[in-house]
Amino acid sequence: MSDNPEMKPHGTSKEIVESVTDATSKAIDKLQEELHKDASESVTPVTKESTAATKESRKYNFFIRTVWTFVMISGFFITLASGHAWCIVLILGCQIATFKECIAVTSASGREKNLPLTKTLNWYLLFTTIYYLDGKSLFKFFQATFYEYPVLNFIVTNHKFICYCLYLMGFVLFVCSLRKGFLKFQFGSLCVTHMVLLLVVFQAHLIIKNVLNGLFWFLLPCGLVIVNDIFAYLCGITFGKTKLIEISPKKTLEGFLGAWFFTALASIILTRILSPYTYLTCPVEDLHTNFFSNLTCELNPVFLPQVYRLPPIFFDKVQINSITVKPIYFHALNLATFASLFAPFGGFFASGLKRTFKVKDFGHSIPGHGGITDRVDCQFIMGSFANLYYETFISEHRITVDTVLSTILMNLNDKQIIELIDILIRFLSKKGIISAKNFEKLADIFNVTKKSLTNHS
Amino acid sequence: MSDNPEMKPHGTSKEIVESVTDATSKAIDKLQEELHKDASESVTPVTKESTAATKESRKYNFFIRTVWTFVMISGFFITLASGHAWCIVLILGCQIATFKECIAVTSASGREKNLPLTKTLNWYLLFTTIYYLDGKSLFKFFQATFYEYPVLNFIVTNHKFICYCLYLMGFVLFVCSLRKGFLKFQFGSLCVTHMVLLLVVFQAHLIIKNVLNGLFWFLLPCGLVIVNDIFAYLCGITFGKTKLIEISPKKTLEGFLGAWFFTALASIILTRILSPYTYLTCPVEDLHTNFFSNLTCELNPVFLPQVYRLPPIFFDKVQINSITVKPIYFHALNLATFASLFAPFGGFFASGLKRTFKVKDFGHSIPGHGGITDRVDCQFIMGSFANLYYETFISEHRITVDTVLSTILMNLNDKQIIELIDILIRFLSKKGIISAKNFEKLADIFNVTKKSLTNHS
Repeated sequence: MSDNPEMKPHGTSKEIVESVTDATSKAIDKLQEELHKDASESVTPVTKESTAATKESRKYNFFIRTVWTFVMISGFFITLASGHAWCIVLILGCQIATFKECIAVTSASGREKNLPLTKTLNWYLLFTTIYYLDGKSLFKFFQATFYEYPVLNFIVTNHKFICYCLYLMGFVLFVCSLRKGFLKFQFGSLCVTHMVLLLVVFQAHLIIKNVLNGLFWFLLPCGLVIVNDIFAYLCGITFGKTKLIEISPKKTLEGFLGAWFFTALASIILTRILSPYTYLTCPVEDLHTNFFSNLTCELNPVFLPQVYRLPPIFFDKVQINSITVKPIYFHALNLATFASLFAPFGGFFASGLKRTFKVKDFGHSIPGHGGITDRVDCQFIMGSFANLYYETFISEHRITVDTVLSTILMNLNDKQIIELIDILIRFLSKKGIISAKNFEKLADIFNVTKKSLTNHS
Repeated sequence: MSDNPEMKPHGTSKEIVESVTDATSKAIDKLQEELHKDASESVTPVTKESTAATKESRKYNFFIRTVWTFVMISGFFITLASGHAWCIVLILGCQIATFKECIAVTSASGREKNLPLTKTLNWYLLFTTIYYLDGKSLFKFFQATFYEYPVLNFIVTNHKFICYCLYLMGFVLFVCSLRKGFLKFQFGSLCVTHMVLLLVVFQAHLIIKNVLNGLFWFLLPCGLVIVNDIFAYLCGITFGKTKLIEISPKKTLEGFLGAWFFTALASIILTRILSPYTYLTCPVEDLHTNFFSNLTCELNPVFLPQVYRLPPIFFDKVQINSITVKPIYFHALNLATFASLFAPFGGFFASGLKRTFKVKDFGHSIPGHGGITDRVDCQFIMGSFANLYYETFISEHRITVDTVLSTILMNLNDKQIIELIDILIRFLSKKGIISAKNFEKLADIFNVTKKSLTNHS
């Protein structure tokens, strides 16, 4: 550094180092981009043998890809038929594989090799998060067992606190593992791990809840995304002209919108095929259920035909004043719209990530297809939306008069019940549902009742 | 790259580029570390004037730091006295300032300047998360208003779905904003933002819940962390010998354990001082409450003296077979243990982060103290533990008239509310609490009301 004390040693050389750093890393990036471009378009002289060889390898690749497509489809249907428990195992497997692939791609830089704790910590945080999220959903299926053993009962009742302490251990382990020289990598990898936990593990948890709500809510979203993928490709190669988004230059607006139309159509067909099976439409009560266990239930109203009165102008045109249709078809169209307009952004996000780390695929576990992540990147966002949609517009756990009544009778005493009625009557009269005259009569009666109750106690 | 087709163009030059990249970035890191060390130990010739000047500046710094310490303490107590609502505003302010500081420190690298969307996205995700988490906790205080306006009622009942859609818009905005050349920075900053949302905003949400459970559960944890900080410093400079953790070389094992003893002592004293005030120990029912509004409630049993039988061996020694003590003292000791053994890891984490980005403080908003983050780094982890501890071991999960009322207003329509009142009145009359005569009058009024409601709809 400079020996002359007058010269402020830090200012100027700091700027030099920073500009050197910037210039060098820009040069390195340019070099890597050059190299990457070079590798993919390396101009090898075109000879007859090489075109035949490329055709041969393309045919082989297509064959492998088709074989494995059928392997995956049949595997999926076998899992579906084997029951809800096996579907949950499938989802757990997919999320763990996706987690592994994402972490491998994002932390491929060499330094990780001599930081064993980072890998252990990643797996520790993964299984703690899975235990916290999915443990909660599955405990209710083993209630009987848990109540028999006090230790298990303690674990279930204090689930949240136990998981908080487990996470805290991971946090302490991380802080203790911090090493000078690797700090940026360690903090970076902690952030990536948490991002993957949110986008993969949390959304997979919502997909597991879809399975528990009924396999219909797992199968339909999956099917819509696959249909949308296929028709986006077909419409894209047929009509595609306008580039859709910078991060995925091959995607076109025409493919995107064309796929929306076909996905909407497919949602009607898929619903028509799937909704008659109570094995698919009934929520699961026992994890041993499978296709042959004749699962039945009081169907959710959306699966029952309802009569809808048509606006008068329809009557003049087509002489029909009402239609009878199952509401599930409207909901399927909404899911199809999401699958077409928003779920693809999961795929764009994944391809942006692959572009960032300059990899073609996340992994190589499915021959001809790449990694599991490449196959399921749109499914996570679709599955989480399907769950939120179900909980908001379909689910029947809607609080009914009966559920409120049992809560009141089990928890409130007589004085509190009268207080509650008093407040409710005030609300109803404020809304004009109870007339002022009636409100006065009611108020008198309840005052008398309150006084007699206080004298009694 | 190479013109000779035989030479496999990709393999060798890829390794060359990677080794060049590694070597250059190691050299740059070494240069930056050199520079950083140089800057902090730059040897300026020691003259009489310069020591006097440093002494002068040290004294001035100490004065500023002390003045601002008192400003903060008095500001804190004024906020406490002004009521729960102002404490929530204080926590919201701290979490937003901390979020801002953390994002500024971690994304200081120049590139961010020409990516305006990254900043907008950070603020968008911050307010979406705060609205989702804290909206839920605060809705119950504005129930009457929500019930009156259907639009507000819709927003409250579909809170989770609306927040999911808001987050999804942020996700789509992010994917659309991806730009080649900035991908690594953009994905990195997305991960950092989510990490800060988890560690700062989610934990601050739990601290807000502590305020709602009673200011005692907000004040005691805060106080224990401050006491632990002070005694860790005092014990460290007095007995400190053994280095505690690599990331904070100044911290010693003796300071750590010594502070535990004094924090435990302080927990007893603080509890003794705070627990008599129902303003602190009662959960809040109305956000307008303040120190002078005489807040009372049915105290949680932990604040009431309980008799504990002592094991027989005690009786032989000290002739006492039972002691009467408020259970809250045991819980305070548990919180003190956490404040001493685990909360400091929040501080180590923060100092690891500062070391990574080579900054002395997160900000400069508090003269003499640095940034808000520097002051509250241990409070977040302490506050979240205190909330989990309260929910698991203290809270009675009591179903009160208010909790039932909010469930009714948020989920049942007018017709269902009248049906509910009708059934409750039948129960009360069966129990003899409502006389037969009054029951008939009530039944008439409700029949009239039901008819008018059915005609309306």
